Amino acid sequence: MAATSTTHIIGAGLIGTSVGIGLSAEGWTVTIEDANAQAQLLARSIGAGGALGSEEPQLVIVAAPPSVSVDLVPQVLQRFPHAVVTDVASVKAPVMRAAQASGHGSRYVGSHPMAGREVSGGLAAQGDLFRARPWVVCAGEADDVSVARVVEVAHALQADAVFMSAAAHDLAVARVSHAPQAAASAVAAALGTLDEADVALAGQGLRDVTRIAGSPAGMWADIARLNQAALVDTLGHIVDELNAVRTAPDIGEAMAKLVDKGRAEVARIPGKHGGTQREWEAVTVIVPDQPGHLVRLLSDTAGVGVNVEDISIEHSPRQPVGLTTLWVLPQRVAELVEALDEGGWVVAGS
Amino acid sequence: MAATSTTHIIGAGLIGTSVGIGLSAEGWTVTIEDANAQAQLLARSIGAGGALGSEEPQLVIVAAPPSVSVDLVPQVLQRFPHAVVTDVASVKAPVMRAAQASGHGSRYVGSHPMAGREVSGGLAAQGDLFRARPWVVCAGEADDVSVARVVEVAHALQADAVFMSAAAHDLAVARVSHAPQAAASAVAAALGTLDEADVALAGQGLRDVTRIAGSPAGMWADIARLNQAALVDTLGHIVDELNAVRTAPDIGEAMAKLVDKGRAEVARIPGKHGGTQREWEAVTVIVPDQPGHLVRLLSDTAGVGVNVEDISIEHSPRQPVGLTTLWVLPQRVAELVEALDEGGWVVAGS
Repeated sequence: MAATSTTHIIGAGLIGTSVGIGLSAEGWTVTIEDANAQAQLLARSIGAGGALGSEEPQLVIVAAPPSVSVDLVPQVLQRFPHAVVTDVASVKAPVMRAAQASGHGSRYVGSHPMAGREVSGGLAAQGDLFRARPWVVCAGEADDVSVARVVEVAHALQADAVFMSAAAHDLAVARVSHAPQAAASAVAAALGTLDEADVALAGQGLRDVTRIAGSPAGMWADIARLNQAALVDTLGHIVDELNAVRTAPDIGEAMAKLVDKGRAEVARIPGKHGGTQREWEAVTVIVPDQPGHLVRLLSDTAGVGVNVEDISIEHSPRQPVGLTTLWVLPQRVAELVEALDEGGWVVAGS
Repeated sequence: MAATSTTHIIGAGLIGTSVGIGLSAEGWTVTIEDANAQAQLLARSIGAGGALGSEEPQLVIVAAPPSVSVDLVPQVLQRFPHAVVTDVASVKAPVMRAAQASGHGSRYVGSHPMAGREVSGGLAAQGDLFRARPWVVCAGEADDVSVARVVEVAHALQADAVFMSAAAHDLAVARVSHAPQAAASAVAAALGTLDEADVALAGQGLRDVTRIAGSPAGMWADIARLNQAALVDTLGHIVDELNAVRTAPDIGEAMAKLVDKGRAEVARIPGKHGGTQREWEAVTVIVPDQPGHLVRLLSDTAGVGVNVEDISIEHSPRQPVGLTTLWVLPQRVAELVEALDEGGWVVAGS
């Protein structure tokens, strides 16, 4: 491992402060600044870094919203004429273009740590926010030393460095994040004509589809503007698929075809453990909705050495019981069901 | 509670067999038949009901796919001239129209138990499949005695009877189930142009949105055909929302507007406990991906009397640890985090 770089962070929001805390905890020499004096004070007081001295840092991390990063990165490349500069914006091509247009592309590396929280701001920062998450690295015209310095950051934060071109990154995030957000919000928006009793028929399927639609608009305006081409392209694919169903001579055939097509693609989405999704099987158990019962269920499950790969809990309307579904390896299902039966659990399905 | 009706079930798939097991367990006199001799034998052998004798049943439940129910319900109303007849198809207006056209609308009540499993067939049947789930009752032209008899079934199975018109039901399920399925499948289908490395950037958001897209096409062709008008209408709303973003002069403004609109609707989706969704807060903990650790985490959580309202587990790509998020009441977060800290857990966020 190379010696750590003296690192300066510009931007003391969730990501910048989390990077600062994480690198500081690893023994790096970190400084942090923010145009907002209060945010800067907070970040410094919780261990995200000190004040920049007279010496030029070896690495500068711009942790600002995407559109701010487009303007700020070229300025930072000028301000620190020898430093490697990276940014953490969730759209990469416009920042890359701005960096290269400044004539300092050899010292600019784009980063996109695929981590975040439901809350923003430095107060929400955590040094291990990036642990085990992908950290996209866009090398562009950067020289090897610059790329290595940024990869070192990812590794220090225990993230997985993933190399991609800025264009490939932007299309990928349009497909896996930006357009799915729009689709989830559109599904939710279409509920607008229903009254409360109708909406009450919703089950876990709708809750899953619309979960991300429950978040505030946050940076979506900024992201959509900067990644417009890829977002429009992806929404076009989705709209085409839906229109093919809407306007088909046989809507049944078209619907089945779409579901089959989607199913084939879902199988490619990495599940847990980073591989393609394993085929887990569901064991659904009725669990009283009070502290302790879930523990006992999982304790009984662990008691036969079965690992729970995923859990979903669905509470009952107006009843103090919930259906808890444990996802386990198929070859362990029979054994688990037997053990749960013996433990007095009501297995509602497997 | 009225005396139970002698009940005959036609169709020994998942729903019919589950109803049979559930009602038999409650002491009802149940018979069951299926055109498929093997399915019929299985259902009878696992306690879903006996063979129909010479006496006419008081209640007949048609448990067949939607399009089959449209044809079968009028025949059954003829075959049993005094019985109350209901069906369990997931689209109600076409069955209702067929029943009323037969001239026996006063004895027909539409049902839609909002329950199911990832697997189908009588072998997957469970008597408590309907417990705590909505059971939609469409009265149509039925007389009070007929309606009461069907409500009695829902209550015997511990389901929640919900009264709706067939048209309102069909529009509601298009909004909360059929169109969301199409949208989830379309989001998944749009991944088709990405290579594996790009798809690997997917996170929990995409997995949530596309979870239902992982299921086989099953009865979707049938459902789409029978609920075509409501499905086309709902897909139209969704496509309009997505096109408004795609073609907006300012895509950022349009995206933020859609996200805000969707967010307002998501707040109306009933969460657990049947009310509108509570505002739970997330506490994310790093958990080794081996049997027992999750139990210990939940045990420590229960130890301070905090109820876990929901759990999500996200495993790390290529690392044997997972991020487990516990959703708890906001006022318990601080206490829980303190207890987990003391218990040696690495709380990655709250």
